[in-house]
Amino acid sequence: MYKEQYPSKLLEEAVDAIGSLPGVGRKSALRLALHLLRQPAENVHHFTDSIAALRDNVKYCKVCRMICDDDSCAICADRSRDHRTICVVENVRDVMSIEATGQYRGTYHVLGGIISPINGVGPSDLTIGDLVQRLKSMEITAEAPVEVILALSGDVEGETTSFYIYRQISPLGVKVSSLARGLGFGDNLEYADSLTLGRSIVNRQPFKA
Amino acid sequence: MYKEQYPSKLLEEAVDAIGSLPGVGRKSALRLALHLLRQPAENVHHFTDSIAALRDNVKYCKVCRMICDDDSCAICADRSRDHRTICVVENVRDVMSIEATGQYRGTYHVLGGIISPINGVGPSDLTIGDLVQRLKSMEITAEAPVEVILALSGDVEGETTSFYIYRQISPLGVKVSSLARGLGFGDNLEYADSLTLGRSIVNRQPFKA
Repeated sequence: MYKEQYPSKLLEEAVDAIGSLPGVGRKSALRLALHLLRQPAENVHHFTDSIAALRDNVKYCKVCRMICDDDSCAICADRSRDHRTICVVENVRDVMSIEATGQYRGTYHVLGGIISPINGVGPSDLTIGDLVQRLKSMEITAEAPVEVILALSGDVEGETTSFYIYRQISPLGVKVSSLARGLGFGDNLEYADSLTLGRSIVNRQPFKA
Repeated sequence: MYKEQYPSKLLEEAVDAIGSLPGVGRKSALRLALHLLRQPAENVHHFTDSIAALRDNVKYCKVCRMICDDDSCAICADRSRDHRTICVVENVRDVMSIEATGQYRGTYHVLGGIISPINGVGPSDLTIGDLVQRLKSMEITAEAPVEVILALSGDVEGETTSFYIYRQISPLGVKVSSLARGLGFGDNLEYADSLTLGRSIVNRQPFKA
């Protein structure tokens, strides 16, 4: 009688909800729901409250569109950073990844996605217009240059988005650059794919001793 | 500056909460938190509400301790089932697994765990006392027998729990049985472990053509 059925409507609804997360199947969802059922009520409420609070109260930096708790993110508010270098990334995780390297002292612009006709995402769904406005509001001269680093993924959608943004912002007189691509540090030639290896030879760099 | 740090306290708290689930690491938790952030607010509220509702409103059948939405579960309320055969299982999932086979028409008793000194779980943490009371309230005679099937796992903790329950209930005059163990249907002898294969020979069954 229970084939493909749940002993409780409440359990079924919770499994449906948890199973709607990406990469969580119905068996895992059932396991997680039963795990939550075994926890003290206050732990479960803390769990649900913190997720609801994230969705309801998170803000987006009015300059760079990074998520933050105030009107302006910690990076844009930091006077010691280089506000005339803007690194354009797809999402929040990319900012966190670049920040974790400790190698970048400029600011960011978070697109909130990537141009992908197959997924129905066009330029107007992203914050490209905001980037153009942000650049137009800056004084850009030879003495006070602005650099935009296009740090998008190297696949077709990333390249398309980079090219689209390049066409929008290059008339503004900004310097546009992109991430260095080549073999990873420590990579062995034997295991490199031939496209990356070929590009590494063509784009070879001066040797630094 | 963000090394091991989050751009938003709200995001960090949500990642902490999601990462506390078993089998969900911090990278997956961040991915899931950012996924939820991209969903419409009503979807996220439905997600959190259904989990909180499960924890707050789910009930346990007063007869068999199965989770349910009312005082009595659908199986115990079903007059067509055999209420004099009680299958003792560790948890809710075991009931769902046995029900999914469609081969069992008796009732259940959900222990809510298994005796495990290493995890600090003793007999009094389980519903063994409820099972004894349930059996004592039934009329048990040669004309009206009661069978208890111990359907626990075959590891040391399962065997220990089975033996403990057997000692508690055998004085009540019930028939106690356990699950058949042997080669799985369709199993190849070549790949069977020798313990299972040895037991299968010792506990051989009459051939059914």
